[in-house]
Amino acid sequence: MFGDVKFVCFGGQPSRMEAFCGLVARELNINDHEMDGDKHKNYASGTDRYALHKVGPVLSVSHGIGIPSLSVVFNEIVKLVYYAGCKDVVFFRIGTCGGIGLEPGTVVLTQKAVDGEMNPEYTMSILGKKVRRPAVIDNSIVSELNACANEDDDFQTVRGTTLCADDFYEGQARLDGAFCDYEEEDKMKYLSDLREHGVCNIEMESLGFLAMCHHAGVKGAVACVTLLDRLKGDFVSCDIKMLKRWQERPQNIVIRYIKKKLGIINGVH
Amino acid sequence: MFGDVKFVCFGGQPSRMEAFCGLVARELNINDHEMDGDKHKNYASGTDRYALHKVGPVLSVSHGIGIPSLSVVFNEIVKLVYYAGCKDVVFFRIGTCGGIGLEPGTVVLTQKAVDGEMNPEYTMSILGKKVRRPAVIDNSIVSELNACANEDDDFQTVRGTTLCADDFYEGQARLDGAFCDYEEEDKMKYLSDLREHGVCNIEMESLGFLAMCHHAGVKGAVACVTLLDRLKGDFVSCDIKMLKRWQERPQNIVIRYIKKKLGIINGVH
Repeated sequence: MFGDVKFVCFGGQPSRMEAFCGLVARELNINDHEMDGDKHKNYASGTDRYALHKVGPVLSVSHGIGIPSLSVVFNEIVKLVYYAGCKDVVFFRIGTCGGIGLEPGTVVLTQKAVDGEMNPEYTMSILGKKVRRPAVIDNSIVSELNACANEDDDFQTVRGTTLCADDFYEGQARLDGAFCDYEEEDKMKYLSDLREHGVCNIEMESLGFLAMCHHAGVKGAVACVTLLDRLKGDFVSCDIKMLKRWQERPQNIVIRYIKKKLGIINGVH
Repeated sequence: MFGDVKFVCFGGQPSRMEAFCGLVARELNINDHEMDGDKHKNYASGTDRYALHKVGPVLSVSHGIGIPSLSVVFNEIVKLVYYAGCKDVVFFRIGTCGGIGLEPGTVVLTQKAVDGEMNPEYTMSILGKKVRRPAVIDNSIVSELNACANEDDDFQTVRGTTLCADDFYEGQARLDGAFCDYEEEDKMKYLSDLREHGVCNIEMESLGFLAMCHHAGVKGAVACVTLLDRLKGDFVSCDIKMLKRWQERPQNIVIRYIKKKLGIINGVH
């Protein structure tokens, strides 16, 4: 059932990954995927830990928030593609993030992922011992994705360092969470420092995702759209309609990559 | 709208926290809570990051998997109860876990929470620096919860140390994930060591939950049911019907506590 899978696209929210399937089906001109009413069939409907959809060679999977949540479904998808005998599968994380010094709506391709202390490794505990897994990036995919940005896109696509935080509020220097032991000034100094070190965006899964891809020997890349410029505020203020349009930007970059790989031009093989 | 909230119950899966509302309504004899068809109204239906229901003085909230996912909704709920002017609110995490040396279906009340290296602190990065937040336990609540276990319950309720892992597979010494760099023997030695150190169960949120409760100055406790004995295997094999019954066990312990606090005996105030 899953033997023809070539691309696995992960994203946080189940609804977004369901909507993504519609875009994939339309762009790849695939009509025979399974539906459940007007929704794409969820192959993981027995659980509400995540959603799993399939459109032709593309799996669309939700991973929730943060690396621990992602790690559960990541393990299960690696087993799925292994047991299904899939070959040369490419994994993507397509998400949203906060940008640093970028016009909101910009797509950031992760060229380096770091934790909250700027280490490019995912640290976890196994059998009571700390284990560090480097988030080695496959630069060829990042370049190929970057080449999928069009000159006439109404948004920018950039490459840069992604800071992967374990928290949405304090972990991302926000002032509007329930806790805050620092001032506006400390926050701005921190974010400016990040920018000087090449950090373009902040989200919550990239480091674990890329470290796990590398550890699994799977090609992987992360493409996220910035919903705000953190140098200008903490709060996402764009309306739902614009948010939905922006979310499609990294999805479209990845779909263009998939079409190139499948040799599809304008929907025709 | 939320000013009368006295108890906030967090749990991983949205469906379980929706089902929990039915139990609360029945046990507390509350009939005027808002419904949406045959489901309890989800006050967070604008997002699929989490679900939020209210039955009288009880909020029921889903937190997803892992501390980062929990931390987002935790921040938002602390703000909610603060702005609603709620007083003396008690937070519970009601979940599922793997047990160590316990009959599956046992309820474990967390008396101490530790990370994968046995530290009783939640470590996070704020403004680029490591911050440690101790998971200080409120022993009075743990004792009161323990006193809510009945002698004629068809399950055991125990107090013990909970190991909070950042991963479901390797982080919990499982052999059945996508990755595994150790052997059955290493796993068994590790789990036996944990047991000797008083670890009764393993899950993925207790440490952050209790550390955040302490940091917020909110009374909090964790009650989880074991779905398997990790000394005997890695795989949850109980059927869905039994799983649902077991999941209600820690829910019932917490509901008995709530009833005591509200002065309800047999559903009558």
